[in-house]
Amino acid sequence: MTSLVFPTNRPLDVICFGRAGVDLYAREENVDMTDVSGFDKFVGGSPANIAVALSKLGAKAGVISCVSDDGLGRYVCDYLDSLKVDLKGMVIDKSGSRTSLAITEMKASDCEVVIYRNNASDLTLSIEQVDKGYIAQAKILLISGTALSTSSSREAALAAIRYAREAGTVVILDVDYRAYSWHSPEESSLYYQLAASLSDVVIGNREEFDVMEMLEKPDIEKDDDKTALRYLNDATQVVIIKAGEHGSKVYTRDGKNFTQGIFPVEVKKPFGAGDSFAGALMYALLQGHSLQEGVKMGLCRCGDQCIKKKLY
Amino acid sequence: MTSLVFPTNRPLDVICFGRAGVDLYAREENVDMTDVSGFDKFVGGSPANIAVALSKLGAKAGVISCVSDDGLGRYVCDYLDSLKVDLKGMVIDKSGSRTSLAITEMKASDCEVVIYRNNASDLTLSIEQVDKGYIAQAKILLISGTALSTSSSREAALAAIRYAREAGTVVILDVDYRAYSWHSPEESSLYYQLAASLSDVVIGNREEFDVMEMLEKPDIEKDDDKTALRYLNDATQVVIIKAGEHGSKVYTRDGKNFTQGIFPVEVKKPFGAGDSFAGALMYALLQGHSLQEGVKMGLCRCGDQCIKKKLY
Amino acid sequence: MTSLVFPTNRPLDVICFGRAGVDLYAREENVDMTDVSGFDKFVGGSPANIAVALSKLGAKAGVISCVSDDGLGRYVCDYLDSLKVDLKGMVIDKSGSRTSLAITEMKASDCEVVIYRNNASDLTLSIEQVDKGYIAQAKILLISGTALSTSSSREAALAAIRYAREAGTVVILDVDYRAYSWHSPEESSLYYQLAASLSDVVIGNREEFDVMEMLEKPDIEKDDDKTALRYLNDATQVVIIKAGEHGSKVYTRDGKNFTQGIFPVEVKKPFGAGDSFAGALMYALLQGHSLQEGVKMGLCRCGDQCIKKKLY
Amino acid sequence: MTSLVFPTNRPLDVICFGRAGVDLYAREENVDMTDVSGFDKFVGGSPANIAVALSKLGAKAGVISCVSDDGLGRYVCDYLDSLKVDLKGMVIDKSGSRTSLAITEMKASDCEVVIYRNNASDLTLSIEQVDKGYIAQAKILLISGTALSTSSSREAALAAIRYAREAGTVVILDVDYRAYSWHSPEESSLYYQLAASLSDVVIGNREEFDVMEMLEKPDIEKDDDKTALRYLNDATQVVIIKAGEHGSKVYTRDGKNFTQGIFPVEVKKPFGAGDSFAGALMYALLQGHSLQEGVKMGLCRCGDQCIKKKLY
Repeated sequence: MTSLVFPTNRPLDVICFGRAGVDLYAREENVDMTDVSGFDKFVGGSPANIAVALSKLGAKAGVISCVSDDGLGRYVCDYLDSLKVDLKGMVIDKSGSRTSLAITEMKASDCEVVIYRNNASDLTLSIEQVDKGYIAQAKILLISGTALSTSSSREAALAAIRYAREAGTVVILDVDYRAYSWHSPEESSLYYQLAASLSDVVIGNREEFDVMEMLEKPDIEKDDDKTALRYLNDATQVVIIKAGEHGSKVYTRDGKNFTQGIFPVEVKKPFGAGDSFAGALMYALLQGHSLQEGVKMGLCRCGDQCIKKKLY
Repeated sequence: MTSLVFPTNRPLDVICFGRAGVDLYAREENVDMTDVSGFDKFVGGSPANIAVALSKLGAKAGVISCVSDDGLGRYVCDYLDSLKVDLKGMVIDKSGSRTSLAITEMKASDCEVVIYRNNASDLTLSIEQVDKGYIAQAKILLISGTALSTSSSREAALAAIRYAREAGTVVILDVDYRAYSWHSPEESSLYYQLAASLSDVVIGNREEFDVMEMLEKPDIEKDDDKTALRYLNDATQVVIIKAGEHGSKVYTRDGKNFTQGIFPVEVKKPFGAGDSFAGALMYALLQGHSLQEGVKMGLCRCGDQCIKKKLY
Repeated sequence: MTSLVFPTNRPLDVICFGRAGVDLYAREENVDMTDVSGFDKFVGGSPANIAVALSKLGAKAGVISCVSDDGLGRYVCDYLDSLKVDLKGMVIDKSGSRTSLAITEMKASDCEVVIYRNNASDLTLSIEQVDKGYIAQAKILLISGTALSTSSSREAALAAIRYAREAGTVVILDVDYRAYSWHSPEESSLYYQLAASLSDVVIGNREEFDVMEMLEKPDIEKDDDKTALRYLNDATQVVIIKAGEHGSKVYTRDGKNFTQGIFPVEVKKPFGAGDSFAGALMYALLQGHSLQEGVKMGLCRCGDQCIKKKLY
Repeated sequence: MTSLVFPTNRPLDVICFGRAGVDLYAREENVDMTDVSGFDKFVGGSPANIAVALSKLGAKAGVISCVSDDGLGRYVCDYLDSLKVDLKGMVIDKSGSRTSLAITEMKASDCEVVIYRNNASDLTLSIEQVDKGYIAQAKILLISGTALSTSSSREAALAAIRYAREAGTVVILDVDYRAYSWHSPEESSLYYQLAASLSDVVIGNREEFDVMEMLEKPDIEKDDDKTALRYLNDATQVVIIKAGEHGSKVYTRDGKNFTQGIFPVEVKKPFGAGDSFAGALMYALLQGHSLQEGVKMGLCRCGDQCIKKKLY
């Protein structure tokens, strides 16, 4: 089975590209937004969560992101710094953008999340703010696909991928599709496809791959095998299709594939699991474990995430 | 001394025009934003606060405002409704705007407030959403000046003032200047002046009047008497210049003026007092009290506001 | 009958505020845009035309306008300069805007005009670019209403009016309504009304006054007497309602009014007449003629304009 | 030497993607913009010019473009239709955009061109307006790189390329770099590179390839051999580097290259030649000629273009 080869002698293991923000979790469980009395404050944002997961596991992680020049931005930086996440790629914006903010209920299902992403700081990242040399210092560049949703972050993310390919840094695309961030599903499909064709590993769930394929197939096929084939014919080496409680299917360029089931837990909130998965998977691969072992270790971490407000 | 005359036989006492949003107050007092563990949830926004103050005092208050179609927007509506604030003028926006949000420390001074106002729902109010007939049902239209900062709320507010003048509804402008909402101080000066020239009462502090006068006087005079004269020569009948701990100066069109001192308290946060003042002042005037009595009653309520997270 | 009083001892007679641009007139008459072989080049834009008309008559005219930093912008400036129009208020924009451009057929009726006004230079004028001292040097400030259609020109025009009132410069508003420049008819009504209430003279045709009144009267009355009354109760001293081939009705604050018929000609194109009218009217008034004489002289010039590509 | 293989049995030879607009050429030669009396009217825009060139040579050409719903837009459509250019991909925009317009002096050097491209119709093309089936009907899709400069045309062009690859339509990228259309050189580099990596043939001059390479090489190398190598390692089969009076260098994937000189003429205006080149080159290749013959025939047509206002 295809195995990923990482560059050696690099000071950073993984740079996570995309949003870092604040999550406010309802103080009371199973209470509607209208009735909760207040919120607990955490750092959030998928790439930031993944960097934290990696750092906790012992890997050397950094972020390329942007927060606003205020107390919430400082909080994000202080927290990441306290966990030894490298902040050389963190931009502090003073132009009026605001740190990404998610305000959420605590429910196992029908869990409302109100997102403040109008002029979000991370989406203001621009090509000029991405340091080619910094990316060359990492073994892996993880791109959170939401960074592709809007200019100028879109261009910054695509340039980062280009720099990574030039430097031999392995590119992993975590699709992380959020419809509200995009102008249209057609644009999502276009840019995800461009980014995937330049990535070594693509991670997403069935719905996310459906969006990615919509320009080719307006009537979605939902056929994992065909989906994998599409990407593996291009630069991509590994395709991972996550299926929630059904585990994950993994396809590699040599035509092999396998399925890994999950480890069930009692869920308290329906998100966060993907970040734990990505973090643990990359950590395992960097440690020299096989893809099978990596995916197993990744899924093992998912459950933990769903039973607490924050694992980390 | 000039006394304001209100129309009679109207179902509403006051309609408050402008933002209604959510305030998140730091759970811990005198702790930096970075270190607070979480936040308590309240309804905020100056015009919403004033409507609540009026309603608590027994007046019939309504709002013309806009919130987003989500749990936070519903919270604002439910809360106002529970206090019998009339919501016929409340718009629910589904276009991607977000309910105005303020996240604040609890400190008596150097108190940081992080404001989420990028594409704020209340600033999306447009002329077409303002019902001329609704404004004709109130004795007073209170305009929160921040509504003038940005199109299309700017045009909605100016149209509301025009409708009020046509209907004989008394117009009160609460300057409520927030520099970050405006394109430039010159624009602030221009539109505040236009709105003030069409208002019966103008309420602001010295710094706010300085901004309003900057197009005439780039080198600010800070002369209350001249300021009052400028507005009273126009349609304005009463000018109230608030001076924080020094109380308020009140000027009327007949050339009279008086000063009213404040009632000192131990301050826990440096905001909210102005809304209590405006609410109590209008209530007193509507009850038939004189301007002197109204201003005294208004200042009396200010102190209460500063010693709690929320008076209401 | 009310007569306008102008300040004396001022170096400029009239400053015309608004667009100055290029008109390209079809080389062939009565030929569709598709089939014309080319175009003749002229300077255009209502305020520029009025300044030229005034200058040709011997008055000292200036413009506050903006053109792009290219050959067409230079052409506009050179032409105006050659006719002794004062250019101290002309801004040259280098930010990517383009000089206003109109490309037109030459037909007496059904005459198509293609307008290039996306990011037009004159609409980029901002408050900061309007010199209060310059306006104080003129007896009259003529505002072309199209300048009110869009920010930041809107604010610049309103500030210019404010400066003029402060300096005793007489303000004349030429409504010059172009629906395509405005966000909505409601906005047009709002800002025209604000500007009219600050103007000494308001000139428009019936359709333009209908737009101005739409916020009060969604079902238009088309009653000239009521229209005039509305404005004359405010700061406005004179209202002129143009009626094309039926001449003009003039109302003054003292309750008087008169009608002046036109001088018929064979029309070659259906525009340009209004600018000649405004120019000649102002010239006559500045020369000390009565309103009746001024309007007669204005209408006298209208016909001339319609029989040539350009009178001037 | 690598030779391009085109699909057969397709109703269209070439679809040209990008702007179609109006060119206004100064009536007088060697006269400054300020002093010319008027302009002659032609259809312009690089992709439209190429389609016309192809159609004149006998090929079946179509365009994917957009013009405004007015006399100038109709002129463009009527003219292309009269030359049998297929217009099924032509969109008529009614949203306020304007047909691309270039107003130009007639000079051999220092020839000023004033471009009206603010909200240009062709740049409003969106993914939804690009018909996948239409692209599958052509042997070649020619992309004019300026279409990549701005959303939503950028996404439409990238989607068109994707559809072409899926359908086996040969993709030719004519770089056609216009700095004023782009947000930044970095963005130009990013998107040109993405488009080039998906194109079978890339045509540009040295300056254009420098821009394309700037993200990799901020200090430009200007080394044609290295440039060609960069693209030929990817999907690109042929790279053509035009050098004006020095002719063109052509590189193919099999490592071969050749240089073709030009045929000198007395130049009357310094543009238009590239469109003739592209048209004649594609025509020759479709006729079964070799790359060498095609480039020779292309350069042969360049000179003709520079001695008239319009060849076609």
